[in-house]
Amino acid sequence: MFLELTDNIILKDCFETVGKIIDEIILECDSEGMRLRALDRSHITFVEMDLKGSLFDEYKCEKPEKIVVDSTELTKILKRCNSKDILRLETDDSYLILKFEGDSSRTFKLALIDNEYESAVPPSIEHPVSVPIPTNILEEILKDMELFGETLSFTVDEDYLICNGTSELGDSETKYLHGEHVSEVVRSVFNIAKIKDMLTAKKLSKLVTLKLGNDMPLIMNFNISNGEGKLEFLLAPRLEMDE
Amino acid sequence: MFLELTDNIILKDCFETVGKIIDEIILECDSEGMRLRALDRSHITFVEMDLKGSLFDEYKCEKPEKIVVDSTELTKILKRCNSKDILRLETDDSYLILKFEGDSSRTFKLALIDNEYESAVPPSIEHPVSVPIPTNILEEILKDMELFGETLSFTVDEDYLICNGTSELGDSETKYLHGEHVSEVVRSVFNIAKIKDMLTAKKLSKLVTLKLGNDMPLIMNFNISNGEGKLEFLLAPRLEMDE
Amino acid sequence: MFLELTDNIILKDCFETVGKIIDEIILECDSEGMRLRALDRSHITFVEMDLKGSLFDEYKCEKPEKIVVDSTELTKILKRCNSKDILRLETDDSYLILKFEGDSSRTFKLALIDNEYESAVPPSIEHPVSVPIPTNILEEILKDMELFGETLSFTVDEDYLICNGTSELGDSETKYLHGEHVSEVVRSVFNIAKIKDMLTAKKLSKLVTLKLGNDMPLIMNFNISNGEGKLEFLLAPRLEMDE
Repeated sequence: MFLELTDNIILKDCFETVGKIIDEIILECDSEGMRLRALDRSHITFVEMDLKGSLFDEYKCEKPEKIVVDSTELTKILKRCNSKDILRLETDDSYLILKFEGDSSRTFKLALIDNEYESAVPPSIEHPVSVPIPTNILEEILKDMELFGETLSFTVDEDYLICNGTSELGDSETKYLHGEHVSEVVRSVFNIAKIKDMLTAKKLSKLVTLKLGNDMPLIMNFNISNGEGKLEFLLAPRLEMDE
Repeated sequence: MFLELTDNIILKDCFETVGKIIDEIILECDSEGMRLRALDRSHITFVEMDLKGSLFDEYKCEKPEKIVVDSTELTKILKRCNSKDILRLETDDSYLILKFEGDSSRTFKLALIDNEYESAVPPSIEHPVSVPIPTNILEEILKDMELFGETLSFTVDEDYLICNGTSELGDSETKYLHGEHVSEVVRSVFNIAKIKDMLTAKKLSKLVTLKLGNDMPLIMNFNISNGEGKLEFLLAPRLEMDE
Repeated sequence: MFLELTDNIILKDCFETVGKIIDEIILECDSEGMRLRALDRSHITFVEMDLKGSLFDEYKCEKPEKIVVDSTELTKILKRCNSKDILRLETDDSYLILKFEGDSSRTFKLALIDNEYESAVPPSIEHPVSVPIPTNILEEILKDMELFGETLSFTVDEDYLICNGTSELGDSETKYLHGEHVSEVVRSVFNIAKIKDMLTAKKLSKLVTLKLGNDMPLIMNFNISNGEGKLEFLLAPRLEMDE
């Protein structure tokens, strides 16, 4: 596998976000592009990343390849890539090799990990409601909600996406006029910190699409470069016994 | 009680400052405005805040009301208010309700606390000397003084406000030409950290007035919007046995 | 001794850097200027600072003087000096006196320390290779190298200064085209944190000169104001047993 990329922010943000959720990056590359499908250790979040070869300035992968590296180390190295550097990725038998070409020429080698696990298969779920929301507005909502505890509820009605955070001390509510056609009122509760981790990808796209149902998992979908790539998370809901 | 305010920085800064000194905000509201008078837990600082109804874009309080809330929680919520948001405050039987109207509509409810304590009565003291000083200059002085320990002395003579910090390692002195008519030389010693807490209110006013005497409490007075509001602190002096 | 300086950044940066390496500043002043020569506590780094009297707006020292002060306290005081302040230094029997004249007049006194030690004598070493490099490029190199451990190697060949950092997880390499005449390939290994400490002086000069040899100490030389001052460090190499 070999790839070259000028707009390196896509790879940096994708891997930084994924690295917050899973410990090992397991990439499957073929002539079409690279893909990652994994469940986090606590089995609460499913991650799916698809980056088509056409997303890169150059992309070659003659025979299918599985690349496994430590996600923390990969994030640390990618942070050293300046926004104007040309980023090149390739593999040899033992290493993922990252080259940054800018004012100087820099090479980082990251040891490949032996890993026999198969990629996870994403669950297939039909959500009754789908609401796009600007990533910066969702970010502010999360900050409001975390004032009063660790969970929030998303309620979608005909007009609004309503977010609620509650505790003994008080509660907070934000309403966002979604402008979508919604025929069913749905509500689910989620862990705020998990959604914040996923929103690390906020620079990938101005909008993030939330797919919701009643006590159903949340899907957060980031569309990259008009569909040439996607980063999607599926987060299990918190079930409230007393409701 | 109901109030609406566009220039929300006043309320944010007042409550953030007061919240550094006392644990519970005890507000007394009537048709004239809102007032807070309280002594901190260690009985070193007395806080007095007066905000007239005319300070707000809208203010209504038909019958006198006592509002008690946790100061840390109130500060956290007010920090979520953007500078361009319209801020609305009201109460129901159980909550102080804060509404922020901006790009989105956000509501925070903070539980009212049962509190039987009466507001404290401010001590009545005549200070021989009164010196206004720009808040940013006082801020720099505090940073100079804390290099050499936890206390500083304020000395006022005919021409200068002189600040001194001393330790075994060395000492620091700053002179500020006050331009006031002073007929008596006075000197008192105070805890630097306490003055820093009070100076959290620095954005309320370009000038803060210091009232001083010999081994007397310090009064720090912030005049808000030409007298429509005031925030005033009275800080007990440190008495030096060896002088 | 008395000196006055408008461009106070030189003194601030020199003493801040030296203060990261040694605990006590031992200055020797005479009619020519001031000089510091010292070995750090662990005997790994030798520091030499020379500041000629001509570097200052005013400089007077009628008879030779030795000034010893705590380096941490001196750095703390110098940080309080604003970039537009006129900086004055003088001594009396017990104190180093620092005056900052700007919007206000500020005086700091720092206790002189009794110290009988003689200044250290710098080792005399001939390095086969000398390479100037922009301080900001060296700074970026250090950040790359510290991803994979605590040491780096500098290799100089005909064309490049090559920096390498290695660990079990991976490694990093940066090449800098030096443009110097180099007839011998040399390589030495150093502690990254020590070089970072020395590079605190990065604002003193756009270039830093590295002098290198095979398993020899590193000299890092900062030339101040066209030779009117210099700050130079000599850092012992790490010897690799397995090479």
